[in-house]
Amino acid sequence: MMTVTRLDLADAGILLAGARARAAEIGVPMCIAITDEGGNLVAFERMDGGKVTSITIAIDKSFTASGAKKATHDYHTASQPGAPAYGIFAGIGGRLMVVPGGLPVTVNGEVVGGIGVSSGTPAQDRDVAQAGIDAFLTTL
Amino acid sequence: MMTVTRLDLADAGILLAGARARAAEIGVPMCIAITDEGGNLVAFERMDGGKVTSITIAIDKSFTASGAKKATHDYHTASQPGAPAYGIFAGIGGRLMVVPGGLPVTVNGEVVGGIGVSSGTPAQDRDVAQAGIDAFLTTL
Amino acid sequence: MMTVTRLDLADAGILLAGARARAAEIGVPMCIAITDEGGNLVAFERMDGGKVTSITIAIDKSFTASGAKKATHDYHTASQPGAPAYGIFAGIGGRLMVVPGGLPVTVNGEVVGGIGVSSGTPAQDRDVAQAGIDAFLTTL
Amino acid sequence: MMTVTRLDLADAGILLAGARARAAEIGVPMCIAITDEGGNLVAFERMDGGKVTSITIAIDKSFTASGAKKATHDYHTASQPGAPAYGIFAGIGGRLMVVPGGLPVTVNGEVVGGIGVSSGTPAQDRDVAQAGIDAFLTTL
Repeated sequence: MMTVTRLDLADAGILLAGARARAAEIGVPMCIAITDEGGNLVAFERMDGGKVTSITIAIDKSFTASGAKKATHDYHTASQPGAPAYGIFAGIGGRLMVVPGGLPVTVNGEVVGGIGVSSGTPAQDRDVAQAGIDAFLTTL
Repeated sequence: MMTVTRLDLADAGILLAGARARAAEIGVPMCIAITDEGGNLVAFERMDGGKVTSITIAIDKSFTASGAKKATHDYHTASQPGAPAYGIFAGIGGRLMVVPGGLPVTVNGEVVGGIGVSSGTPAQDRDVAQAGIDAFLTTL
Repeated sequence: MMTVTRLDLADAGILLAGARARAAEIGVPMCIAITDEGGNLVAFERMDGGKVTSITIAIDKSFTASGAKKATHDYHTASQPGAPAYGIFAGIGGRLMVVPGGLPVTVNGEVVGGIGVSSGTPAQDRDVAQAGIDAFLTTL
Repeated sequence: MMTVTRLDLADAGILLAGARARAAEIGVPMCIAITDEGGNLVAFERMDGGKVTSITIAIDKSFTASGAKKATHDYHTASQPGAPAYGIFAGIGGRLMVVPGGLPVTVNGEVVGGIGVSSGTPAQDRDVAQAGIDAFLTTL
């Protein structure tokens, strides 16, 4: 058997709070999702004004980042026309997100979960996701 | 045009906290979902130990309760063999939940959202969902 | 953060071998799936003559047992007409299996994964799944 | 009526072993799937550390390769913007994979099944899939 470490609900609350604070700072209400290392949802919130279409996108960005142990913006590059992973954005029924805004949460070199953000521009989504991670890493 | 009243994220936090407290009291870690009156997810949390299979079920119970403006336990009765809504549990790709634990949140006679709970027995799920609503109504 | 223990691929091989041996003994070629405690597939095999329709059913039985920490035959009872969880078989897009043949794998009181079997009668499926677990527990 | 030749479970075990050995050699834990000529799953394994998101992708690469009798890297080329099969990656609910790593298994000019690999770079996935086929062809 193997032993894995993963985010718990308290951790998810810290990630959410860090992301929410940054979203408020830049004035963009966001959907924010936290998954554990198995890709399963731990917590989610849609800030007032966050987009309805972003609910699933935020969840799937987080699923992708934790499950693939990779930022969705890395897939953005790798899935361009002609690039090696072109077309992967349609995988897993469209759950494999290549739009920036999904980041793995890594502690001691191990992916313990993910955060996915959606409703702003992809650059804003990524920025807000990073703020969640920064807030979390500060508490360790 | 029409104006609708719906739960915001602060309301969802109160509903979550009320449900979480009751879940802790009975010792059953739950998945808890809050949707607005359009059936769209506002907030979700999986307490540590909550079931992975309950993520979607909690969300869909809340979706059903807010979207149909009806408790899922009412559908439980109405969907029995021979009853008028028999078979409706397979509707919307299985999202129409007839298992108790989904309740509409009603204010001044209007449904403003829903709460869905899963991981315990259906009776426990319903009890915890009700505790969320009780906590919320106290604040109005 | 939390630490969880789960099945690895070597464990899955032991579970598969135990189930396969029992399936051969009773002369029913089976589909056999092993998931980890997050409900994610670790290993699968369809014995020669196993049913094509049983591929997804075996995987989903294992997903249900590990994710819900409960045997699918418990849901069989709980989801009968009039029973508390009636209708739950349509949940999660139909992935929530209530047909016997899905068992959680429990070590030291913790669910570390699941096994799902399909192609025989539900009683045979359950028997073969149990044989997989028995073989695994012997090695601990 | 027609008679078809297809991979059996013993063949699948050889393909898996060949791919697994190569994956270990290059140090990339992989998800590996084997399908028969009908596109139906025969065997699957996720090596310890293989990606959760790669479970479905490996299965769908193998499904595509055996069902379409074509390597997924051939679709990679054919589905580029302006190319004849552009957009086909969204087909079959996203199951039609155009990312390299899916190969048909061909014996005496007939496709008897497929192998799909995922978790590495597309080039690594293809390399590991080929190693599975090489190991299998050696035994004929």
